[in-house]
Amino acid sequence: MALNATLSQHSQSSTGRQNRASSLTRPIFYLLGILLCAEAVAMLVPAAVAWIAGDSDWRAFVASGAITGFSGGSLYLTCRGRPIVIRVKQAFLLTTAAWLTLGAFGALPFLLHVPGLTVADAFFEATSGLTTTGSTILLQLEEMTAGVLVWRALLQWSGGIGIIMLAVAVLPYLGVAGMQLFRTDASERSERVLPRPGQTATAIVAVYVTATVACATSYWLAGMTAFDAALHAMTTVSTGGYATSDASLGQFARREVEWVAIFFMILGAVPFVLLIRAIRGQTGSLFREDQVRMLVFGVALSGLGAAVWLNVNEGIPLADALRLTLFHITSIVTTTGFVTSDYQFWGNAAVVAFFFLTLVGGCTGSTAGGIKMLRFRIVYVALRMQFHRLIFPHGMFPPTYRQRVVSDEIISSVLAFLFLYLLTLVAATIALSLLGLDFVTSISAAATTLSNVGPGLGPIIGPGGNFAPLPDAAKWILSALMLLGRLELFTALVLLSPRFWRS
Amino acid sequence: MALNATLSQHSQSSTGRQNRASSLTRPIFYLLGILLCAEAVAMLVPAAVAWIAGDSDWRAFVASGAITGFSGGSLYLTCRGRPIVIRVKQAFLLTTAAWLTLGAFGALPFLLHVPGLTVADAFFEATSGLTTTGSTILLQLEEMTAGVLVWRALLQWSGGIGIIMLAVAVLPYLGVAGMQLFRTDASERSERVLPRPGQTATAIVAVYVTATVACATSYWLAGMTAFDAALHAMTTVSTGGYATSDASLGQFARREVEWVAIFFMILGAVPFVLLIRAIRGQTGSLFREDQVRMLVFGVALSGLGAAVWLNVNEGIPLADALRLTLFHITSIVTTTGFVTSDYQFWGNAAVVAFFFLTLVGGCTGSTAGGIKMLRFRIVYVALRMQFHRLIFPHGMFPPTYRQRVVSDEIISSVLAFLFLYLLTLVAATIALSLLGLDFVTSISAAATTLSNVGPGLGPIIGPGGNFAPLPDAAKWILSALMLLGRLELFTALVLLSPRFWRS
Repeated sequence: MALNATLSQHSQSSTGRQNRASSLTRPIFYLLGILLCAEAVAMLVPAAVAWIAGDSDWRAFVASGAITGFSGGSLYLTCRGRPIVIRVKQAFLLTTAAWLTLGAFGALPFLLHVPGLTVADAFFEATSGLTTTGSTILLQLEEMTAGVLVWRALLQWSGGIGIIMLAVAVLPYLGVAGMQLFRTDASERSERVLPRPGQTATAIVAVYVTATVACATSYWLAGMTAFDAALHAMTTVSTGGYATSDASLGQFARREVEWVAIFFMILGAVPFVLLIRAIRGQTGSLFREDQVRMLVFGVALSGLGAAVWLNVNEGIPLADALRLTLFHITSIVTTTGFVTSDYQFWGNAAVVAFFFLTLVGGCTGSTAGGIKMLRFRIVYVALRMQFHRLIFPHGMFPPTYRQRVVSDEIISSVLAFLFLYLLTLVAATIALSLLGLDFVTSISAAATTLSNVGPGLGPIIGPGGNFAPLPDAAKWILSALMLLGRLELFTALVLLSPRFWRS
Repeated sequence: MALNATLSQHSQSSTGRQNRASSLTRPIFYLLGILLCAEAVAMLVPAAVAWIAGDSDWRAFVASGAITGFSGGSLYLTCRGRPIVIRVKQAFLLTTAAWLTLGAFGALPFLLHVPGLTVADAFFEATSGLTTTGSTILLQLEEMTAGVLVWRALLQWSGGIGIIMLAVAVLPYLGVAGMQLFRTDASERSERVLPRPGQTATAIVAVYVTATVACATSYWLAGMTAFDAALHAMTTVSTGGYATSDASLGQFARREVEWVAIFFMILGAVPFVLLIRAIRGQTGSLFREDQVRMLVFGVALSGLGAAVWLNVNEGIPLADALRLTLFHITSIVTTTGFVTSDYQFWGNAAVVAFFFLTLVGGCTGSTAGGIKMLRFRIVYVALRMQFHRLIFPHGMFPPTYRQRVVSDEIISSVLAFLFLYLLTLVAATIALSLLGLDFVTSISAAATTLSNVGPGLGPIIGPGGNFAPLPDAAKWILSALMLLGRLELFTALVLLSPRFWRS
């Protein structure tokens, strides 16, 4: 009672500021509490698997779940009760805080169970999962317990549905509030598939679960065990790329597995609202979408070109070469990151090509990361307009996309995003090289994490390598890049602006 | 007479089209003729030097001069006579054609005299000179004749004054006609230093010559021979970087030479109209200019940081380290390309840093290449605006630069340039890697030629290397990149647009 009175007195002396601060942060903590409770429940899945498998590490998962659940529950209970109204600033804060917090708590099972991991290692692994990146610091995955493998797959799977929800529900909401955000994310067309938001969310979950089940069944039919099929389905549909072996999908050495993976990686990189429309009968809307066409034709054409090149230069039979190139190009462009062989041995051109492919990315509103197709489309529109203006200085050429005028404001917004992307890449590459990493390792590590792909280039972090040998400082930098890339840079970086925190 | 009549008859059958074509190309050929005649006269300089030195290669220069003079004279005589009115399209054509033609004829002395060079080699060397790039395919420069060394320096020196004239006289003219071009070049403020264009041109030449003489005198006082001082002054003020030895400025091993080079490289990378203003008493306008501040403070701060790093990590005394880092950072950022030691041995961070520094560039309206300071300034303005729009969705924040509103149109134009720059870099890197070059060689060769710097990275084309071992196809690609970079991409690439050639 005495303490209470003191607090109350104290709060009266600075009422205005405190009220404002608490009305800003309270709904954020409340929602973070709910998310952490959900994560705690998710941790019971690997606990159950470990318990069934007879592994001793079920205790680590239960302990992690208890800590996460207690933290989440406390936040939920202390911050609930008021009507929840989320404003623009709060949405930015919540989004970044959610990804950061879920990653931090998601690291607990690794830290508690896997021997020899530093905090940086555990946070890297959990963040790489949640952001559906797929870079790993765990060596000899074959010898990991079933629980650890399940938790990694579960992190990616929930990260995948999380990013779709963000793109469909949160980012357009910020767009509606500000009309600016969906320009930087360009996902305004994700809105209003179904009359009510809840209906859309339910439909997305339904499609996501169905796609995962279909993928798992296909993998199983292609020759995987039920366990492998389920886990790889979760990391395929989420374009995450965590595997159950250091050899990634190469462990199965089956063509069928690669074709199944190609199909479902593309599926995971397609706008989910268009998948829903397609299932509801509007199949055409999926193939009329520029982003989908660019993705499918882009992958097919570059796969074909690369296959011919491999056939001529390395003597690999054309059919095998085509499967190899299609699989790896799809894997990198959809930002999944599965591999079946080390493409660095295909020659210098392959190294260069895969570096640039790392930055491309899938479609907006999907689980894919990277720069994304829509932005390349807008850039094409912008460049064409510049040339027209040069040739016909007095002409008027309002650039259009899908019969709509693309204003200079939209173009400058998309191009600013692109430039910020490259600026982040440059800054991170320099930071990594200052830690002693070589040029190729530094720049490819920065690119693969910022684009949420997975494998880098060079002998250390290449398709056959692992991120474990990197110094801890590098792992923190790369974890930050994964989060920045996943949150489309602006969502997170806006929090660093002094203006954001002023009144 | 009979032939004349036939031609006349023939021309009547397609009068309209021919007239239009000739009124488009005739003034271009006329002006190209004048430029080629000037180049022929310039070739007499190395011829005279060779003759005085008693070298036999004076014949090669006289022969080249004769061929160039005859070609130029023919064009001049056949195409003169009409009033010369240059329209926007013709200015694009003329600019690109001039750089291409002068490079092609400038290659003649190399082809006629230096044994073992292919056409690709000779064109590469001449283009690298004229675009003030400074990458070389000539091995053992110490053993080249005085005539060849003079011709290389002369190519860079005239290329330097050429690009300043283009930036001051031609590009703003295109801007006035179109209001679009100077946005992509952003050199509108170069205009109207002096009331009449002829006066400005004379002042620029006077300042350029004075700067060269001052630089030569300083080099001479610093210990160079008069010959070396004159040649290196010509390649310093033009931020070209051709030297008279494979060891570049390292051959002199004198601190004084490095400090002189630092000062005059910066001078060459500063807007020339501001130098003229400064000489006319408005010294302040030079230091009030954002571009100059960014260049000087940027170089100074990064030099200081790098020096401390070198001191700590490599144990080089701080004073020596500071001179080393300032010299090399200035050399790369001003796109000169002189070296005194191979900075690749300073560690991985140096390799990464020098790669990105290659793309930076000096100020607009100078002899420097690269992306250039002004564009980074505009990008900063654009990014700040994006963040403001996110934080205050309903606020109005017209971005300003030098008390003027920077419209979205200008921003999207500058950002489109940047993206085209990177796109060209990516395409060229992939093309080079397809020729078998490794990642670092491919990407650094593309960057250093596109930015008109000079040295690349890696064992082949690094500061201690040479472009000679590259395949001919690579040399053609890199020559094209030098021209594209020098002409700010759009000026040359606009010619590839089908729309340009319609009506």
